[in-house]
Amino acid sequence: MTRQAILEQAATLASQVGLEGLTIGSLAEALELSKSGLLAHFRSKEALQIQLLDFAVERFVDAVVRPALAAPRGEARVRALFERWLEWPKHGSLAGCIFVALATELDDRPGPARDRLVQAQKDWLEVMATCFRTGIAEGHFRPDADPELFAYSLHGIMLAHHHAQRLLEDPKAIQHSRNAFEALLAAARPSHS
Amino acid sequence: MTRQAILEQAATLASQVGLEGLTIGSLAEALELSKSGLLAHFRSKEALQIQLLDFAVERFVDAVVRPALAAPRGEARVRALFERWLEWPKHGSLAGCIFVALATELDDRPGPARDRLVQAQKDWLEVMATCFRTGIAEGHFRPDADPELFAYSLHGIMLAHHHAQRLLEDPKAIQHSRNAFEALLAAARPSHS
Repeated sequence: MTRQAILEQAATLASQVGLEGLTIGSLAEALELSKSGLLAHFRSKEALQIQLLDFAVERFVDAVVRPALAAPRGEARVRALFERWLEWPKHGSLAGCIFVALATELDDRPGPARDRLVQAQKDWLEVMATCFRTGIAEGHFRPDADPELFAYSLHGIMLAHHHAQRLLEDPKAIQHSRNAFEALLAAARPSHS
Repeated sequence: MTRQAILEQAATLASQVGLEGLTIGSLAEALELSKSGLLAHFRSKEALQIQLLDFAVERFVDAVVRPALAAPRGEARVRALFERWLEWPKHGSLAGCIFVALATELDDRPGPARDRLVQAQKDWLEVMATCFRTGIAEGHFRPDADPELFAYSLHGIMLAHHHAQRLLEDPKAIQHSRNAFEALLAAARPSHS
């Protein structure tokens, strides 16, 4: 079994039992492998957790960030980021967004896994702010718009989407998310356009 | 020990170990009480979980909803809801917002606890939409503004706030949340004002 296939299964397991429930033992059981076999791949529960987070970040960059950065600078790129993000839960075995799911689990658990997640989330907020900045440079957005605030608000829409979709099973979730996103873009455009 | 004091402790424990980790046994240990003593209050783990959720909802209504509804109709009431919500984690032993913390834990766990949480979250979104509606009636907000979309977007700001505050420990969280909230209100005002 490849490292990749093992990490896919680890992601599925973590989405069910949380990262704390993801142990060498529980993963060995889910995979019907021996613990010693898994320990050859991952030296400890902590190493397994970090490698799972690294794996999820790689997948996220491949599925969301890289293709969006290929879109034209400015509003088109911001739109591509959002649309790719909406599609993201469909990639592979991750149920919903693994980062959202882990955020509330890890926020009060200091340690390397929390640190890795914080870094990944700061990187993601920065990608959104940077894409927005290209829109200011291109004249799509107001020069005095705050890119960090835009990223913060867009992230809020994503979190609301995850909540409405997964917990509330609200059939209007996608429409609300798109409308909230359009309102955010509209507020950022120069007033003459 | 009163039922109230027990539920306070249960809330603290649940915020550390999740609702799944909150069992009659783990709570008895945390309280240094006998399991049979606790079973007199709560017949099962499930009953304990539901009563904890009911307790949290009661606290939330007392601390956030009821005082905000005492504010004048319209924008002042919407502001009061938001400001009270920001203060909410300071009430009692609940670390952060227990509803946000439980949302990602319960979203893929069907059962009475998930149903109770869904109901509470729908009620909360409805309170926000209803307060916004009083603002349309008072002429503070545009007649064609969508109250459900407002509630959805405001909820997004709250989720982003919880994330930035608790996971990222971002010192700008409160300022970003206030600015995002002001932008949301500004977009909802009639264009002539």
